[in-house]
Amino acid sequence: MPTLCKPSVSVPEHVITMEETLEFAARVHAGKPQLPLVLRLIQNTGVRKRHIVQPIEQTLRHPGFEERNRVYERESKKRCPAVVEEALANAGLLAHDIDVIVYVSCTGFLMPSLTAWLINNLGFRFDTRQIPIAQLGCAAGGAAINRAHDFCTAYPDSNVLIVSCELCSLCYQPEDDGVGSLLSDGLFGDAVAAAVVRGRGGTGIALERNASYLIPNTEEWISYAVRATGFHFQLDRRVPGTMEPLAPVLRDLATDHGWDVRALDFYIIHAGGPRILDDLSKFLDVDREMFRYSWATLTEYGNIASAVVLDALRRLFDDGVIMPGATGIVAGFGPGITAEMAVGSWTAEVPAGRDLAQTAGERVA
Amino acid sequence: MPTLCKPSVSVPEHVITMEETLEFAARVHAGKPQLPLVLRLIQNTGVRKRHIVQPIEQTLRHPGFEERNRVYERESKKRCPAVVEEALANAGLLAHDIDVIVYVSCTGFLMPSLTAWLINNLGFRFDTRQIPIAQLGCAAGGAAINRAHDFCTAYPDSNVLIVSCELCSLCYQPEDDGVGSLLSDGLFGDAVAAAVVRGRGGTGIALERNASYLIPNTEEWISYAVRATGFHFQLDRRVPGTMEPLAPVLRDLATDHGWDVRALDFYIIHAGGPRILDDLSKFLDVDREMFRYSWATLTEYGNIASAVVLDALRRLFDDGVIMPGATGIVAGFGPGITAEMAVGSWTAEVPAGRDLAQTAGERVA
Repeated sequence: MPTLCKPSVSVPEHVITMEETLEFAARVHAGKPQLPLVLRLIQNTGVRKRHIVQPIEQTLRHPGFEERNRVYERESKKRCPAVVEEALANAGLLAHDIDVIVYVSCTGFLMPSLTAWLINNLGFRFDTRQIPIAQLGCAAGGAAINRAHDFCTAYPDSNVLIVSCELCSLCYQPEDDGVGSLLSDGLFGDAVAAAVVRGRGGTGIALERNASYLIPNTEEWISYAVRATGFHFQLDRRVPGTMEPLAPVLRDLATDHGWDVRALDFYIIHAGGPRILDDLSKFLDVDREMFRYSWATLTEYGNIASAVVLDALRRLFDDGVIMPGATGIVAGFGPGITAEMAVGSWTAEVPAGRDLAQTAGERVA
Repeated sequence: MPTLCKPSVSVPEHVITMEETLEFAARVHAGKPQLPLVLRLIQNTGVRKRHIVQPIEQTLRHPGFEERNRVYERESKKRCPAVVEEALANAGLLAHDIDVIVYVSCTGFLMPSLTAWLINNLGFRFDTRQIPIAQLGCAAGGAAINRAHDFCTAYPDSNVLIVSCELCSLCYQPEDDGVGSLLSDGLFGDAVAAAVVRGRGGTGIALERNASYLIPNTEEWISYAVRATGFHFQLDRRVPGTMEPLAPVLRDLATDHGWDVRALDFYIIHAGGPRILDDLSKFLDVDREMFRYSWATLTEYGNIASAVVLDALRRLFDDGVIMPGATGIVAGFGPGITAEMAVGSWTAEVPAGRDLAQTAGERVA
């Protein structure tokens, strides 16, 4: 069974607290009619701090799309190697053991993708398959897990590395003052993350079933306007209400697997915003506390796009309370509006030298 | 065995011949020192005509990245449905039978990707998985075939739709006059293509093995500069020489499969340019004529990026001479520099009502 091993997550050194966000917003929107709305939106995010790749003063200046993308390239090359190496170590593998790199990132655009640079610089085999995905936004973390699961199902001896590089602060657009933009200015943070899905062995979530779902006719609800100034994030006011149509889809996935979605042991949910988490726990009839890893990500890092599910999962590992056989669900949500979901159960690798047959034999004896 | 069925390909109605390209180049570069070089580069492409989505006068004007991307969106939505429907019909399937859409395109950027629009508008199931790939350039056609192969290997009852939408003329950059840019101005054409990989049944190439390869340390050789004016294609002068390192990789793929790469029945090769095709036939020791489908694509449409392999394959089907059991190779090349390769053999679906057991029984009788 393909196993999703412990993710590695890194957040940048520049920190901006909610208080600072409020101060900057008060300055940027001083005297404008939207100011009270902006302040309310920021406070409602519940994001206590965020980490960003540049000091805030620099983040608020737009140096042009070309320069922004150059910063993306520089920062992604600087920050990805450490999380990749830690994710490999977490999985007990070397770069040479990896057969596929799925690289997900919607906040900068490189051609070739960073996959080529990672292969050239971190010791991966030159026959490593590259799956770069830029257009699934926040759903791409879930999509990467699911495509890794699929690949290991096809080739059980293989291993897939997932890398998520989301430098959301590089998509800040000073001129945008629609409600969706103002909200996202207070919501998104930067992070890089990586995780390995092992075809055999490993400790983590044994991936048992996955599914994707597009909410009909919601293409315009989360989108980028692509302009000379780069990617402009556009968020429709109906997005926070999408958990009502998505909850039944998550419930069906669990039911199809013979599980009750209300009674799982862990929930790794995309922390798109507080309303997403609140609504989903309500519509799934699951205690709010069961989403604590996602709440922690949101509170401490903000919405870090495709890296959210990897960070929430990392917190589950760190918690150390999960037991073999525990059941759970992973769900990423993003543009489309797309949900990428998986169900699986906790598995712990049998220590070296003791294979499953031995263990079973011992039990029988 | 996953089977790659007959592709559907469509080229736009605006045609520009080599003579016209030479005339326009003479006008655009009039009085500039690079003019003789430009004319020689264009003549050397061997591209007799290309098809583009807008009249040439309009193509030569740059209306800004935002407007270009808007044209991409309009034209992709206008032109993809017909090839998708034809590819489904070629595979004997309905939209409802498709489990994954792999959408490859490096000439425009939509978020969400066109996958969401296709699902909403062409009758696909809302649980169709979306794999949008923008960053593998010309190699993405081969990558799409290989990822479809992998998915059907994991889930043999599934079917994958590949859509390639390459509107290369929307990346024309009037200010770029490096040799690589001048060459590509005479080389690239527009096309949209689609094909289905069926997990079971179907007539076409039974996909038996695939591989990917990155030529070490060649990230900079084919790349985009991302600027306020959009994607700027950058081509290093060493690219035409890359078949020397890639030929052994193709040879090894065939050898690993027990085949002699010199003695296959068909070759579906990315027509990156005439030197690519000439060199590869030389280094593989394969008669130039064996690459006739790729040569035809190059001559009649130009380099249509990720759609080349689908168009060359469409010509193989149209030729109608291939027999069940015939062996062949498919190879796409693009930025990285990445090669995405597959080997497979021709398979013809047993007519309805006559399954394999019956046919075998008849033979025995």
